[in-house]
Formats: sequence, structure tokens, C-alpha cells
Amino acid sequence: MTRVAILGGTGYTALELIKILLRHPQVEITALTSRTETAHVADVHPSLSGRLDLRFENLSPAMLAERADVVFGCLPHVASMEAVPGLLEAGLKVIDLSADYRLHDAAVYEKWYGHAHSDADRLKSTVYGLPELFADQIRGQSLIANPGCYTSTSILALAPLICGGLIEPTDIIIDAKSGVSGAGRTPKQNILYAECNESFSAYSIGSHRHQPEIEQVLSTASGQTVDVIFTPHLTPMDRGIEATIYAVPKRQASQAELLAACREFYRCKPFVRVIDRIPATKDSAYTNYFDMTIRLVKNRVVILACLDNLIKGASGVAMQNFNLMCGYDEATGLM
Amino acid sequence: MTRVAILGGTGYTALELIKILLRHPQVEITALTSRTETAHVADVHPSLSGRLDLRFENLSPAMLAERADVVFGCLPHVASMEAVPGLLEAGLKVIDLSADYRLHDAAVYEKWYGHAHSDADRLKSTVYGLPELFADQIRGQSLIANPGCYTSTSILALAPLICGGLIEPTDIIIDAKSGVSGAGRTPKQNILYAECNESFSAYSIGSHRHQPEIEQVLSTASGQTVDVIFTPHLTPMDRGIEATIYAVPKRQASQAELLAACREFYRCKPFVRVIDRIPATKDSAYTNYFDMTIRLVKNRVVILACLDNLIKGASGVAMQNFNLMCGYDEATGLM
Amino acid sequence: MTRVAILGGTGYTALELIKILLRHPQVEITALTSRTETAHVADVHPSLSGRLDLRFENLSPAMLAERADVVFGCLPHVASMEAVPGLLEAGLKVIDLSADYRLHDAAVYEKWYGHAHSDADRLKSTVYGLPELFADQIRGQSLIANPGCYTSTSILALAPLICGGLIEPTDIIIDAKSGVSGAGRTPKQNILYAECNESFSAYSIGSHRHQPEIEQVLSTASGQTVDVIFTPHLTPMDRGIEATIYAVPKRQASQAELLAACREFYRCKPFVRVIDRIPATKDSAYTNYFDMTIRLVKNRVVILACLDNLIKGASGVAMQNFNLMCGYDEATGLM
Amino acid sequence: MTRVAILGGTGYTALELIKILLRHPQVEITALTSRTETAHVADVHPSLSGRLDLRFENLSPAMLAERADVVFGCLPHVASMEAVPGLLEAGLKVIDLSADYRLHDAAVYEKWYGHAHSDADRLKSTVYGLPELFADQIRGQSLIANPGCYTSTSILALAPLICGGLIEPTDIIIDAKSGVSGAGRTPKQNILYAECNESFSAYSIGSHRHQPEIEQVLSTASGQTVDVIFTPHLTPMDRGIEATIYAVPKRQASQAELLAACREFYRCKPFVRVIDRIPATKDSAYTNYFDMTIRLVKNRVVILACLDNLIKGASGVAMQNFNLMCGYDEATGLM
Repeated sequence: MTRVAILGGTGYTALELIKILLRHPQVEITALTSRTETAHVADVHPSLSGRLDLRFENLSPAMLAERADVVFGCLPHVASMEAVPGLLEAGLKVIDLSADYRLHDAAVYEKWYGHAHSDADRLKSTVYGLPELFADQIRGQSLIANPGCYTSTSILALAPLICGGLIEPTDIIIDAKSGVSGAGRTPKQNILYAECNESFSAYSIGSHRHQPEIEQVLSTASGQTVDVIFTPHLTPMDRGIEATIYAVPKRQASQAELLAACREFYRCKPFVRVIDRIPATKDSAYTNYFDMTIRLVKNRVVILACLDNLIKGASGVAMQNFNLMCGYDEATGLM
Repeated sequence: MTRVAILGGTGYTALELIKILLRHPQVEITALTSRTETAHVADVHPSLSGRLDLRFENLSPAMLAERADVVFGCLPHVASMEAVPGLLEAGLKVIDLSADYRLHDAAVYEKWYGHAHSDADRLKSTVYGLPELFADQIRGQSLIANPGCYTSTSILALAPLICGGLIEPTDIIIDAKSGVSGAGRTPKQNILYAECNESFSAYSIGSHRHQPEIEQVLSTASGQTVDVIFTPHLTPMDRGIEATIYAVPKRQASQAELLAACREFYRCKPFVRVIDRIPATKDSAYTNYFDMTIRLVKNRVVILACLDNLIKGASGVAMQNFNLMCGYDEATGLM
Repeated sequence: MTRVAILGGTGYTALELIKILLRHPQVEITALTSRTETAHVADVHPSLSGRLDLRFENLSPAMLAERADVVFGCLPHVASMEAVPGLLEAGLKVIDLSADYRLHDAAVYEKWYGHAHSDADRLKSTVYGLPELFADQIRGQSLIANPGCYTSTSILALAPLICGGLIEPTDIIIDAKSGVSGAGRTPKQNILYAECNESFSAYSIGSHRHQPEIEQVLSTASGQTVDVIFTPHLTPMDRGIEATIYAVPKRQASQAELLAACREFYRCKPFVRVIDRIPATKDSAYTNYFDMTIRLVKNRVVILACLDNLIKGASGVAMQNFNLMCGYDEATGLM
Repeated sequence: MTRVAILGGTGYTALELIKILLRHPQVEITALTSRTETAHVADVHPSLSGRLDLRFENLSPAMLAERADVVFGCLPHVASMEAVPGLLEAGLKVIDLSADYRLHDAAVYEKWYGHAHSDADRLKSTVYGLPELFADQIRGQSLIANPGCYTSTSILALAPLICGGLIEPTDIIIDAKSGVSGAGRTPKQNILYAECNESFSAYSIGSHRHQPEIEQVLSTASGQTVDVIFTPHLTPMDRGIEATIYAVPKRQASQAELLAACREFYRCKPFVRVIDRIPATKDSAYTNYFDMTIRLVKNRVVILACLDNLIKGASGVAMQNFNLMCGYDEATGLM
């Protein structure tokens, strides 16, 4: 049995994480923290009524270390890098769902997040928690940087073809669409129901923070400089990300060969489904699956990929990381 | 040509009102006020880009009176009653879309709105702007209290049967459902997309402020004490109110007779459609129509009624009132 | 390990059932039948890709009996009563999710379903599968009539108060709202996206087939003649039923006393949550929970109740019935 | 006053067209035809209750010519080319909203629509009804091919930059997203509410029939061979198309210069809004506006464009064509 705590538990990612953890046979949730909230968890997340009897608390690292073995960090960026060093020093394992430990270069972090990194040394060496690519490095770590939702979608879709030398690593266009839960639970006018419903639009064109993350991880994984144009869009639905990706073929290969290469790349990966049909976000919603397929159109390889932004894009992959870090089967609690 | 100004123009009701006013052949919009906003109207309401070239301004009653003949008040309650006396003194006609002048009794106002009324004398005599019932009183007024959205739905549905002595004035149950735009545009967690979407729930059971308004107006109109239970619900859609109303028959009447009584009651009312089919909110969405029908079930008369909460429930009826006050045909700009 | 087959597996209820069964540690799904479909299950239900490797087959009762111990019937009514006798004779246990064995009186069935019942003797004695009321009778049965979705919502909400003598058994108004998945997967114009989205309306007023089912079960459970007016509404969301129920108090009782009576009635029932807050459908969506609370408004007891129509309203309760029939813990696979 | 008839009036495009025509001060709707439907229009389109008192009729060209001056064809493709010649011979002017007269080359038509064209000569010379590009040719015609919805979005977005020599005419990627009303009103499983809601997916990748239409019209307009990859997606909303378009710059130009070129290209076009902000579909929903902006990202010009698929993408542009053909101001009835 592993005791876990959740740091910053009032948002959608934390809610989803709690639901997943409640299904894990070897997990006990022992603490939920918040800097401001002291209510019972069911008052903040009514769907947890009768399922988890905890209140939010403001706990020091030492107090957390008495109660838990592993901490899932659901804090915003900056807040996270202020908290993580203390947690590690207190002997806790940490899975950080914020963006704070994803980019290896502190200068890149500062450029995209507008804030100097206060833990730059650790940043360099933190393992990026995408188990389909880095499972071996994740095992045994005490800090894991959990990936972003758009990032996972894009990397999982592109890695087999870039690493396999089947598409050019540059001139890649990622046209991505996300449900509104990805924008968080803090009240802002642009995520009000009456603004988002019946509306579709692009945002943060060329300036979304997941772009350097995608490029860094794919470059590391493939040993080539990967360069992408990334355009996110807000879609009137709760959950799901779809990415339609346009890439230039590097060598002649049929659609069947490209699909076969992806299937081989992801052999024995329990949460990747390389399918023939075009995936819809609904097919993987409320699951930890990542779905993808490929089409050849004129002079382009078109990759279609979907996942649930809160699960495979955040809390589900966090659970995969947890399982690998703690020696459980990677899929425990996720099927 | 009548010059109009809109007081407090950043919300959904004001946006809808502007769109309607732009279609009125005898109207010129000359000012939009806001206490805090100074942007161009298209920055606040992107759909008005290229349609109205005005900025928000903070204008005194005197300044407004130089620019406009009629003011539509879209302020929140309390703010409205602080503004209205000055506007009237400056010689403006006012259509107040807030709740501040709807209840005739200052004590009732204070009980339901938690605030003493600062203009209690005027409150007593202000005409309630529901043209289907009170057109004769509206003509020539300089202040009109524009009705609430749930209120109009409920009153228009019940008035023919209560006034006709066909149902009991008490033991009436109004089970009403509204789209989310009715909750306004100020960011709050409960109206975020990811909270409201795929969710339906009741709220303010027995305590919604439209309940005393419904009772007052129906009592006035029928000369009887009308008593209702009113239960509002939030529905995952932008617009529309549906009310399913259960009433006790006062005397034997067939469904056809009840429908005929309603049709007679609303003869020559251009925006009321008494239909045989069960109305859906979509049938009247984006229009100024009010749709209703009747069913007899066991020992109850069941009334089904729908309207668009932003138009017939707010800005469309404001335009009817404007037309009546200014001597235009009631339907101008609304078809 | 229990081997199960699903009869008529192409709809939403069957899909949800399969997902639940895949989480049950003691279940093996061995067959899916369809009279017309021969495709792989993942072609009909893309979300099951990689999770269940079966094709639809047209199987006789004898063939089913070789492969399975228990059959879940997801056929339409009439088709179900034609299939059930053969299945039972072949030695299978049957959980029938259709309406065919819910009403004890063949004449009532014929009146509401417009079809003579071909298995009237069995109809009389079939146990109604609502475990919160009838768990003792369900254990050991070989045929269970699984309840309707509106029915479960209404019965679970009313049973504690009617059986406890706290409300009158007559003059009950049930104003119910359902997501669109309740209308099935067979293409019809009225359930197209562009018809239902952004629309809310009542339907089948006074004529919905769940009305006699509600009355029968509540009358049986309470020993009194229960009489309800039932009004269903179609709501623009995938899942969830909300019922707002208006009842006349039988004796003086405070809100707290009514809630306490419900909590006592459902003590140790793992899927009923009697809460203080007003439930939203989203709180129980994708779970097997039934949520309810109570408010006192003027001369009425108002009960608010929610559940997921496909899970607690269909496939989840089917799983509870399965667990009870087969000797597993009632909650297995459902948490 | 011009008398108009609508051919094939049971779908969403026809409904929207009727609503627009009802606002045109010089139009009288005199007939609605259907090959199968004989109901009153309000039974097929409840929102028209009380607004149009016509029944559907099966009328010959001669009968139509007695009643109307202009016919709007809302028939499916193939059916349309069977009807159009007869209508023209009977002396009617025709605006054909189907795809049958859009492609000039009968062989291209046959390849993409799988059906030989029966009116190939007329096909060659029919004017394409996109008034922003071809207003001069539209005036005085008796047959106009009304554009497709994705097509209008794509052409209006690209024409200024291609015709201005600012982007390469090849290697253009159009990633387009549409609301579900674009898929029509004929019941099919893939457009059911419970399939589309909360789901986003691509479809017809590289094979959508609007691709050759986009290429033909842009090639004609620019005098260059234009080549695009077009990927449509289905979005969970009623209305609206968004296109995110990626093009290769042909010569150095700043974002401001590109926007200025578009504004110049569309000077005095009442329904095109070249804006600085990223457009959302909601901004142009229920209007005849086309909104666009431009961003420069790395080595690409990214164009963002939105319109309402049923209005500017179908019935609104049909009305512009009508106005031009009949000598009314282009914007009549559309503001």
C-alpha cells in the first residue's frame, strides 16, 4: 500500500486524479492540500461525496512526509517549483503536473513562462514523464515532470515517424483542438459557458507554451532538431484533444507501412491504439487511451490523434508514472 | 428618428438589445455607458465589429440628455435605482431592465433583494412593462420596469387561464428551466463552461426573486391572490426558457376549450403563439416569440411555455415597450 | 468466473454495460449477439477498440447456453419477450433491460405498449430489479426485470417518504429531465444533433410508459395506491436524469427530519447519496450513484434527484442485479 | 416586389433561407415544394409557426412559373441538375444551392460526385455565386451556382493573398471545422446528438468534395493553378465554420501589410470583416458576416477565418446573389 497526497487539489486535474487513485488497489489518499481552501473535499468536488472523507489542509513538507510516500503536485507553475525542493528534501517522491520541470533549459523556461526558474539545476536533470518513450528512466526516480496535454498528444503522434526517419523533423504543422476543461477552473470571462458554447476559435497562435515542450522532447527522443508550428483551438466540449498534424514525408512509404511502423513502435504499450479508422475524441474520453491513425494526402503525411486531456493528457499519465516509480504494473488502476 | 443610449452595456442583455436596435429603422444609438469600461464596443462585443462605432463612456445624466431621448438601463439592481431618478429629471425616458422598479411594495423589495429601496414612491407607481397585458398603460410613460425572463414566461403562460377563471390561483407549480446566458457575464465558477456543460440542476428553490414578481403581477392582473411555487433550473444551452406549469382546474374545460381561451386572450398580440404542438426552446430562440400550449393530465392543467430569455425575456420586450412609449408600431424591428 | 453474453449489443446501454463488465474481476464476456450486425464490436463501438475482441453473432439459445452462464438482454421490447423464454429453458440466467417483464399485469402492458404480452404468466412473477428495495428477492432468481431510467430515479426519490408515511401517495408531480442518450441510437430526426442541441422541451406528457411502472412499484413497495403525474423532458446533454418532484406532506416534518428518514431508509446502500446540497446531473455522471436531497417550499415537499441514465438507470443497476444473482458483492465492478 | 419559390424546402438551409426572405422588404414567398412532403411549413419547421402560411406542394416548372419569378433550389445534388433546365425553360431565374453547377468541368464533377452530369453545357458557363469576387458577372444572370460553405470560407480567406501575389498558390493547408448543421437533416447515426456531442473528429480527409471547388475558383480568380490540402472536422455546435489556413509566403510582408492588403481587397464589401483579433465562430453566428485575420508564425502565413455555415455559407450568400440578380441593393434583408 502506498500513501499519496495531492498538492493543490481544487481543480479539474486533481479531481480526475482522485477518481483514478480511488480505483488503484494499492493506494491510500491521505492528504489534500490547498493554500486557501479548508472545506471538505465533497464541498469543492461534489462528485466525490461519499467516496473520500478528507478536508483540504495547509501542510508543510514535514507534515506531508509523515502522512504520505508520494505527492502529486497540481499547483500552478511557479508555485510548483517553490514547493518541490522542500518535498524532495523531506523524502517524498513527487510527480509534478505543472509545467515547472518539463523544459530542461532555464533560459527557455524564462522566455516562455516569463519567470526566472528558482531550481535550475534540478530542471536540467528531471525526467520527462511520458512512459511510452521514457519508461526506463522513470522507474526509480523521485521527481517526474508530468507532460502537458497538447504535448503528449503531439509527441505520441509524431515520435514513431520522426524517430523512424519517415517524416522530416521540420516544417511540421500541428493543428490542435481542446475541450474547455483544459483551461482550468479559475473563473475568467473567456471560459464562461455562454462564451465558449456554440463557439470555436484558435488562440495563442505561435505563442503557446506547449510548443517548446513538444520541440524539446521530440528533439531529445529523435536526436534531430524538431521544429513545429503549433496552433491550439478551443472547442465547445468538456474533454478531449484532437490533433491533425501535417508532415513532409522523408522517404516513400505507403499508408499501411506508416501505420505498421507506428504499431511496431508502440508494441506492448497498453494505452496506445493505432487504428485504421479516424479517431474521434469521444472514443478515448474518460479513458487513458491515446488513439491515432495516418492518411496520405497529396504531398503530406496527415496524422490524426486523440486523447482525453484530463486523463491521458494529465492525471492518467501521472498514474502511469506513479506505477512505474513505485514498482506497480504500469496499467494498475487505469483500465 | 429616436436617439437612444444604453446604460451599462457590457453584458449579454445589452448586446442583444444593440442588435435589435440596429434593425429598428427609426433608432439611432448614440451612447453606451459603463462605469469602468472605456473600450470600443467591438472589443467588448466582437460580434458588433463593423456594426456600431461607439466607445463606452462614463456619462452624467445631463450629458446623456444631450445625446439621447430614451435610455435603456442594463445596470444591476441597486445601481439602477441610484441612476434612474437623475435620468428622469434630466428629461429622459427610461426603460429599466433591472429588477429595481418591478415590485410595487418597497418592503417586499427589501425582503427579496436585501437592500432598502431608495426610490420607494416611484416604485409604487411604475408601470410593469409586459405589453401583452399592460400596453395601454405603457404608452406615454417615461419610466417602464422591464420584466424578468422567468417572470414573463410564467405570467404569459398563466394569465389567460387565471384571468379567465379556468384554473385556481393557488397551488400552482412552475418548474422552469433556463439557458446559462440568463446568469450573466460576470465570471463565477458556477457558470464556467466545464461546470455547466453536460449538467442540469435546480437552484434557488423557493427563494428565487422572480417568484414574488410573478405573484404580484398575476394578482394585479387577475384581481385574485395568486400563489406559486417556482423552481428554476440551469440547462446546458445558451438561450431559452421552458416552463412546465401544473395548475388545478377551477371548472371543467377540455384541452381545446383551454387553448381557445388562450388564443382569444392573445388575439392580435403579434408575439404570442398558442400552438397545438409541445414547444421547444429552439423554436423561439433568437426571436421575440412566446410559445405555449396546454395538456390535461389526470387532475391537472399542464401548461408548456417557451421563450428566448435574452429577447422576449429581456431585450425584445424592452423594444416592444420602447415602441409603445415612442408611438411606433409595437413590432417594429422585432420581426 | 462467470461467463456472460449480451443480447442486442449495438446500442448505448450495451456499450455502457460492456465497459462495466470489463472492470468486473469475475466476469468474462463470451458473446455479443445481433440479429443483423456481424461486424467486430470495435467497428460498432469504437471506444472498445483494443478492449474486447469479439464479433457480433446471431446465436440460438442453445449456442448461447454453451458459451455463457448469464445473459444481459438489451433487445427492444416485444423482441425481448420473444427471446427470454427460450433463454431460460436453455438454462441461462437472464437480466432483461427491456420493459417487457417490468409490469406485472399483462393488460396494463398491452395498454401502454400496444402489444399483447406473449409470456403473461412469467410476467406476473418476475422480480423487479431495483436492489435498493428488493435485494432479498433478487438473490437467486434466474430472471430479473431491470428497471427503466426515469423509473429508478422516481422510485428511489419517493420510496423513503411514501413508505415512511411522510408524504401523500397521491397528487405527486414528477417533472423529469433526461439527456439524449436515453432516446437510443436508432437514427430519427428528433434526436439529431442539430435538433436537440440548444433545445429543451417536454414530450410524452401524461403518456410516457414509465408512469405506470413508477406507480406499480411504489404501490407494491408501500402497500398504498400511488398516483403520479409524470412529465419527461429532453435536455441537451449526453447523460443524466434530474427529477424535481412535488409531493404533499402527510404529517409535519422538518427538512432535516425528512433527510434523516431518507438516510435511515438507505443505510448501507452503497450507491445512494442523500446529500444536503442540490444535486447536479454532472455529480453522478459516469457513476452508479443516485443523489437526492429535499427542500420544503410552502405547502410542498420538493425532492431533487439525479442519476446517470445509462449506468444507475440501466447498465450499472443491471450489474448490481448480476452481482446479487450470482453471489458477488453488490458493488463489484461498480466503484 | 419579387415572388420567390423554394424548391426542396424541408432542410436547414431552406429554413434559414425562409427566415432571411421574410425580412426582405421586396420579397413575397409564394411556394415551397417537396417531392414527398405535403404538410404545412410550420409542422416541418416549428419555428416558422405564425410567420409563413404555406403548405409543401409538388409543383411542375410551369406551375412554379405562374407563381414565382425566382426559384431557390435546395435540392440534393443530381436532383438539382434534373430540375434546373426545366425551370430555366419556364422562364424562372434560379439560384441553385446544390453543388450541381459549381464545377465547370463535367469530368471533374463525375469524378467527385460519382454521377455523370446531365447538363454539361450549362455547367461550363454557369456563374459561381460568390459576390465578393464575381458580383459583376452575377448581375443579370438567370442561373447562379451558390457556393459551398467550406468553399466560401476558404476562398474568401485566400483570395486576397493569392491574387495579390503574397502567398504561394500551392502547398496550402486548410484545416477546417464545421458545426453539425452542415451535415443536413436526414437522419443518420453519425449525426445523432449522442454521437456528435462532446466529440470532435476529422472526416473525408483528402476526399471532401469542396476541395476541387476551392481549387477551381481560386485558380480562376487568380489565374494560377491553386493546390490545397483540405481537412474538414465535425465540431459539437450547431453552426459556424472556422478555417485555420497555413500558406507559404511568396514575398516578405509584415502581418500589418498582409492585413492591409486584405482590407483593400475587400473595400466596400459589406459582409467581410478583416479584424485584428482572432475570430470565433460565435462572432459571426446568425449573421451574414465573414471574419478573418492573419498571423505570421515561423515560415508560414496563418489565416484564421469564420462564418455561419447556414447563412454566409449558404442562404445569406444566396440572398446576396438574389439581390444582385434582381437589382436590389446587395445587403437588403441581410443586416
